[in-house]
Amino acid sequence: MSTKMWGGRFGEGTGALMEAYSESVSYDRRMYRQDIAGSKAHARMLAKRGVLAGEEAERIVAGLDLVLEEIESGVFPWRQELEDVHMNIEQRLTELIGPLGGKLHTGRSRNDQVCLDFRLYVAESLEVWTKLLRELAGVFVDRAAEHQETLLPGCTHLQPAQPVSLAQHLLAYAWMLRRDCERAEDALKRVRVSPLGAAALAGTTYPLDPAMVARTVGFSHAFGNSMDAVSDRDFALESLFCASVIMAHLSRFCEEIILWANPRFGYVALPDAYATGSSIMPQKKNPDAAELMRGRVGRVYGSLMGLLTVLKGLPLTYNRDLQEDKEPFFDADDTVRASLRVMAGMLAELRFRPERMREALGQGFLNATELADYLAAKGVPFREAHHITGRAVAQAEALGIGLEQLTLEQLRVFSTAIDQDVFEALRYETAVARRNGPGGTGPQSVTNQMAELSRWLQRP
Amino acid sequence: MSTKMWGGRFGEGTGALMEAYSESVSYDRRMYRQDIAGSKAHARMLAKRGVLAGEEAERIVAGLDLVLEEIESGVFPWRQELEDVHMNIEQRLTELIGPLGGKLHTGRSRNDQVCLDFRLYVAESLEVWTKLLRELAGVFVDRAAEHQETLLPGCTHLQPAQPVSLAQHLLAYAWMLRRDCERAEDALKRVRVSPLGAAALAGTTYPLDPAMVARTVGFSHAFGNSMDAVSDRDFALESLFCASVIMAHLSRFCEEIILWANPRFGYVALPDAYATGSSIMPQKKNPDAAELMRGRVGRVYGSLMGLLTVLKGLPLTYNRDLQEDKEPFFDADDTVRASLRVMAGMLAELRFRPERMREALGQGFLNATELADYLAAKGVPFREAHHITGRAVAQAEALGIGLEQLTLEQLRVFSTAIDQDVFEALRYETAVARRNGPGGTGPQSVTNQMAELSRWLQRP
Amino acid sequence: MSTKMWGGRFGEGTGALMEAYSESVSYDRRMYRQDIAGSKAHARMLAKRGVLAGEEAERIVAGLDLVLEEIESGVFPWRQELEDVHMNIEQRLTELIGPLGGKLHTGRSRNDQVCLDFRLYVAESLEVWTKLLRELAGVFVDRAAEHQETLLPGCTHLQPAQPVSLAQHLLAYAWMLRRDCERAEDALKRVRVSPLGAAALAGTTYPLDPAMVARTVGFSHAFGNSMDAVSDRDFALESLFCASVIMAHLSRFCEEIILWANPRFGYVALPDAYATGSSIMPQKKNPDAAELMRGRVGRVYGSLMGLLTVLKGLPLTYNRDLQEDKEPFFDADDTVRASLRVMAGMLAELRFRPERMREALGQGFLNATELADYLAAKGVPFREAHHITGRAVAQAEALGIGLEQLTLEQLRVFSTAIDQDVFEALRYETAVARRNGPGGTGPQSVTNQMAELSRWLQRP
Amino acid sequence: MSTKMWGGRFGEGTGALMEAYSESVSYDRRMYRQDIAGSKAHARMLAKRGVLAGEEAERIVAGLDLVLEEIESGVFPWRQELEDVHMNIEQRLTELIGPLGGKLHTGRSRNDQVCLDFRLYVAESLEVWTKLLRELAGVFVDRAAEHQETLLPGCTHLQPAQPVSLAQHLLAYAWMLRRDCERAEDALKRVRVSPLGAAALAGTTYPLDPAMVARTVGFSHAFGNSMDAVSDRDFALESLFCASVIMAHLSRFCEEIILWANPRFGYVALPDAYATGSSIMPQKKNPDAAELMRGRVGRVYGSLMGLLTVLKGLPLTYNRDLQEDKEPFFDADDTVRASLRVMAGMLAELRFRPERMREALGQGFLNATELADYLAAKGVPFREAHHITGRAVAQAEALGIGLEQLTLEQLRVFSTAIDQDVFEALRYETAVARRNGPGGTGPQSVTNQMAELSRWLQRP
Repeated sequence: MSTKMWGGRFGEGTGALMEAYSESVSYDRRMYRQDIAGSKAHARMLAKRGVLAGEEAERIVAGLDLVLEEIESGVFPWRQELEDVHMNIEQRLTELIGPLGGKLHTGRSRNDQVCLDFRLYVAESLEVWTKLLRELAGVFVDRAAEHQETLLPGCTHLQPAQPVSLAQHLLAYAWMLRRDCERAEDALKRVRVSPLGAAALAGTTYPLDPAMVARTVGFSHAFGNSMDAVSDRDFALESLFCASVIMAHLSRFCEEIILWANPRFGYVALPDAYATGSSIMPQKKNPDAAELMRGRVGRVYGSLMGLLTVLKGLPLTYNRDLQEDKEPFFDADDTVRASLRVMAGMLAELRFRPERMREALGQGFLNATELADYLAAKGVPFREAHHITGRAVAQAEALGIGLEQLTLEQLRVFSTAIDQDVFEALRYETAVARRNGPGGTGPQSVTNQMAELSRWLQRP
Repeated sequence: MSTKMWGGRFGEGTGALMEAYSESVSYDRRMYRQDIAGSKAHARMLAKRGVLAGEEAERIVAGLDLVLEEIESGVFPWRQELEDVHMNIEQRLTELIGPLGGKLHTGRSRNDQVCLDFRLYVAESLEVWTKLLRELAGVFVDRAAEHQETLLPGCTHLQPAQPVSLAQHLLAYAWMLRRDCERAEDALKRVRVSPLGAAALAGTTYPLDPAMVARTVGFSHAFGNSMDAVSDRDFALESLFCASVIMAHLSRFCEEIILWANPRFGYVALPDAYATGSSIMPQKKNPDAAELMRGRVGRVYGSLMGLLTVLKGLPLTYNRDLQEDKEPFFDADDTVRASLRVMAGMLAELRFRPERMREALGQGFLNATELADYLAAKGVPFREAHHITGRAVAQAEALGIGLEQLTLEQLRVFSTAIDQDVFEALRYETAVARRNGPGGTGPQSVTNQMAELSRWLQRP
Repeated sequence: MSTKMWGGRFGEGTGALMEAYSESVSYDRRMYRQDIAGSKAHARMLAKRGVLAGEEAERIVAGLDLVLEEIESGVFPWRQELEDVHMNIEQRLTELIGPLGGKLHTGRSRNDQVCLDFRLYVAESLEVWTKLLRELAGVFVDRAAEHQETLLPGCTHLQPAQPVSLAQHLLAYAWMLRRDCERAEDALKRVRVSPLGAAALAGTTYPLDPAMVARTVGFSHAFGNSMDAVSDRDFALESLFCASVIMAHLSRFCEEIILWANPRFGYVALPDAYATGSSIMPQKKNPDAAELMRGRVGRVYGSLMGLLTVLKGLPLTYNRDLQEDKEPFFDADDTVRASLRVMAGMLAELRFRPERMREALGQGFLNATELADYLAAKGVPFREAHHITGRAVAQAEALGIGLEQLTLEQLRVFSTAIDQDVFEALRYETAVARRNGPGGTGPQSVTNQMAELSRWLQRP
Repeated sequence: MSTKMWGGRFGEGTGALMEAYSESVSYDRRMYRQDIAGSKAHARMLAKRGVLAGEEAERIVAGLDLVLEEIESGVFPWRQELEDVHMNIEQRLTELIGPLGGKLHTGRSRNDQVCLDFRLYVAESLEVWTKLLRELAGVFVDRAAEHQETLLPGCTHLQPAQPVSLAQHLLAYAWMLRRDCERAEDALKRVRVSPLGAAALAGTTYPLDPAMVARTVGFSHAFGNSMDAVSDRDFALESLFCASVIMAHLSRFCEEIILWANPRFGYVALPDAYATGSSIMPQKKNPDAAELMRGRVGRVYGSLMGLLTVLKGLPLTYNRDLQEDKEPFFDADDTVRASLRVMAGMLAELRFRPERMREALGQGFLNATELADYLAAKGVPFREAHHITGRAVAQAEALGIGLEQLTLEQLRVFSTAIDQDVFEALRYETAVARRNGPGGTGPQSVTNQMAELSRWLQRP
């Protein structure tokens, strides 16, 4: 007879090949805490509803605590032939407390059990992500606070466009991370739903109290429909999507760090701890952390695409295809946690080089918009002001100088609306200071942004 | 000199090849309403803040209304060489009201303008989706109400598992659609943020009131950081993700319709309007609508993956790569709207065939769990009850009959805990009726679910 | 001073966080054979070109053989702080043979070394895949040979269309696998290119002989351009694409196994070794192997998408992002190998149930095309024949019988071209037998296909 | 009665909604040439095999030529209600030549017809791609020929690593494009397979000659198995994969153009025709073509992922999901063609700025490897030479000078193996010239590469 728990009907065991193909305990064992927490909540609910005697439930809970200790102390006998974390724990429980262990599964199926465990795991991960997102946003705010006066060329199309403060540039990422945080919090509403009580697919005949289990494990409510409960993996998809956007945001800043670390830019000096050298070129100081992180966005996108593929065209209810939900999530979870931590560490130690940024300001006619605005303020229609400025830039470029180095006479060739006060308008500090409207790069705006972000960071 | 608005500096025009490569008016013209609405809000805000005279703003608004009329009546002269919807409209406005038209662009850039237009478009789409999702969920609830008594085999692994009501099966989808709706509503919070006032990237020197523009166009608030504002496409990603999950859900029901329409199942007869025939096989009645919809999940997944790719490693702020945000969204939007409508129409007219479902109930030992539960209720530990049942199923299968057709004597060979009352337990109606806990397939649970879903559907 | 080989310039070591983030030895150690083979080829080439003394090369080779033994016997001291398989092996080599070990790296960089190792690994994998593809194709051919007489409904749109032999159906997959094999062989041409000699990016100053290294490791030729050589990962992409198509094909047959195992179809009985039971429903025999395999297509698609993402927009030459090439490939490699083996085992033992297929033939008017063809053969224009048949089918359906059960009189109502010989035309065996053209389902065609496939399978 | 050709059995027409959802003529009409070519080949084969009279075939062919003329002159009456290009053409043929038109479909199904048309279309596209790939590779070779003496910093990790010639850098892309070309040629072997004769799925009862049709349309052979023939879309997948890699390669060069156009690099001046300006910043000259192209890789990746999704888990044979194969391919085809052309135009006119590249050579200690190699050549073990060089770089960096500006005395502090000849070794030209091995950046190697690539380009 088969050694499998479900094997009553089968004439022969599964081969080693198939066992290796179908086992999940090698990776789902990381859900042991969630499995035990879910089982304890289930046992207590069973007792509350009279399905188990109170004393039975307590013996089960005590046995589960023993199992937990065994696992955490490293002595638990994990067995691949028991397939998954659930069977491993239940089998061990029965070894420890006898046949009573078998009663724990009353009114429950692996279908709803695995789903509860996974939801608990995902929920904890999202909570960790939001915490790490806030921490990283905090580092961005802190570094911004140091660099309110530091100006650098703000780019569009990677071409210098207008001067901005480094603070404004860094705060852009804090705002992205805040959105990531809010998105994860919204996702959590759909993660924190307990499926226990759906049983295999149709609900159970036992007088269970799914809402009590939900409360016990810290979830907001229980499932609405048993068939949906066991086949729903939207919560995993949505979490993978959150992870994908987080990684996309990080990859954008990584790209900037990599560019800025190139000596042509030279805007940053990398902290040694986050750079590496070359086995053949001794002078290299490579932005490896940023490159790896930019590359790792791929694996998270891939995990999202993988699970979307799994769900395409899958009929109700549970299908074994759904076992493919956990590895992509675990991988994405590891990647997001490590990336947020590495970025926080790297950013905290990144040395910005304001002198190189300043040097770059002189290239690229970053005050051209100022001239156009100056003209518009003097009543020149904007499109015309724009054309005038274009011609002035062409002239300055031909002369190899900046706009601010043209003489008043040279400038007035293009428009008689130009006067001496143009030179004040062309200063980079002026340009930044004038953009003090809500969300702009001006000092007051930056201060306001930092205040608002700090309020958000201090909120529980 | 170039004919391009931005061409003051350029010595030669762009070639036809490049014009075709870079133009967007062929597809972004569908945002004309949004562009005009945004411009009107901008013009009025400019007047409120004294940047334009009130009379100027009114002439601009009137001119924009004229443009709107031209477009909607089909006489608007769209020109590819003007690149995009924004330039087309602004150019036409200037033709209609003279140089004043040029002042509309004061304090604004195409970077924040295009972003506002697109956000308005996406927001309207999400609103339409939530409306259509509710309508379709309503059809699922209506069809469930007709089929509370209809039983069919509930499957796991596409193997018959336990009897369920067709109502319960259909309601599973209503719950999915409800989640889709809630997810879209959460996404809307991040879509309805006005970027106007971010200008090109750094904010503007004009005393704008971004919050007023936000209010005017019906958004909840304005951007927090100008550099983020013009480079953020999270709202489009998130909407494409919502679309992907909606299509995944639809593809799952499509798969079931396709299976059920196969004569071996025969659970449904397709409405003629949603099926097609074959050019070579006259007898065919193919579930084309369901197949097409299942296939179209691919294009929406692809659009999501495409935009994620665009954003990977993109430095701040606006980069022209971002022009690739609109076509995937428009395509996904069309697909989602049409798919939700087609599914609602098809489901409303789908003829379920309860007699074929009933016939299927007799196959697959769907009452095996009942026997196990029956034994457990008599005090047999669950795992043992499970094994006993497995042996009884093997016996019945060998005899080519159902469990309920075994005699009491035959059953008691496996366990003496079995008694005459087992036959009531083995009835399919009994099995369903006993699963009346929250979310289960029992009649009371189904009634409760329909009530809760109806309350949700009636909420504004 | 840092303990890192490249650390001469760095003032401090990298933290544990960054070490864990950047190490690859936990997964790239599986390339130890390839690394050693590449190093041996490099050492011998260095000796041939006089860069090393012959005796030096032999000591290095002997040392590498020792390292190989240590690894294969499990005593090798893997160290995460040495980052990757290359550093681990080189460090150990130096411990074993002294400072001479350091000379092995002459004229080589980790950039070309890692690339060679990975190409060797990928090439071996593709060779294994082609072998396994042929084996599986062979099983399809063998099972087809058993079922040349077995007829079942051939489907389009999952609707019965025309009768086909099971042999024809199974051979369709053999042809797919043959394409997969040919595609992998084409890919191998681009995998088997040695990058050694490209050094870090620019080539080397030593008088190396890249072609000799290529020959030694069994590759067809050496790189054309050093900068391309170290940044090219097309070979990995192409291999992941091959894996994706293989998995797509397997997922299609898995879908059919899952459908056919449902009792409504009942076309197959699953071998116990490839099915599993349910923890709650004792009667279940679930097609888990097929479901898991169908699900695993997701992870392979995801890996392909992940690496495509990594390569998007990556400037020349080596960037650390490229470290993200190996894990997706290893995962896909494991998945493809295991899936091909599991499918071969499952298919070999799958029990087809011709009687259930026969039973299904009677449903769905599978001989409707025959009637249309019959009419066309009598000179009725095809489109008209098609319409006539459609009406006959409608009549038979209304009567609840098959076309072949209509009387001649009933049939002649639709067309007087119909005569007594129509009944022979309507037999399913006739329908199949008449499709004997190249590639058709007729017996002769099937025999020809098997002969051609067998010839291919016997080719070396 | 329905107006649909296949509608004999249906009681009512399909609604407008469903018609719009399922029609394909709006996009598949671009296959009109292929459809007509396939039909002509089919008609002539039917005549050859005696199924049609020779005179009938000639009247059909003449009618098809008329249809072709109508389409190309713009007078063809396309009708959405006829669903697809095939029905539109067949219907029009029948209008033009009478009921004989209906005989064209003898022995053919839309399933094999659409597949042939699409294969013809894809094959033509791949041929165009290979032609355009060669043209673009030719431009890379031409520009390389101009810049054999131009040196710039070769980067790894986007950090300066070793000096390379611009020629070597550009040729790296030529080699990539050559691979793309070879990959497309391999794919063509699997595209150029005629499915005609597979009929709906099972082959046909008519004595067709599929190989003759294959020859007539220029394909290498006919299908092997009818069921595979109508459900195979591997050729489309493989072509989309080829397109994805082409776009990935282009995106890499785009990234470099974008970086190099930034004034901090300043390595290139963009041709006006491929750059655009800003509506608000008159000085901007944005690399729009490169940005758009980098962004468009997303849509091609998305199309590949979309079709992979469609094929996942699809049972045999034709399913309507497969209609989703054409739009992604058409979109990718347009993108690839336009991108290759735009890149060729842009690259041909790109102005490289050797003086800026030269200036950059002085930054980043690009001759550090030379020092390490110099030391190794003097007998210092490589790893030690590497460490010595690291310390010398640190010293030079502290002094703010290049390695070549350290005095001999300063250098000998690190190793007494250093002598006066070190300064020749440290020259950038020396560094490049010494890398003359196969594929290296040295002048002779570059000349050899250009010769080999030219031979390839001249091959037919």
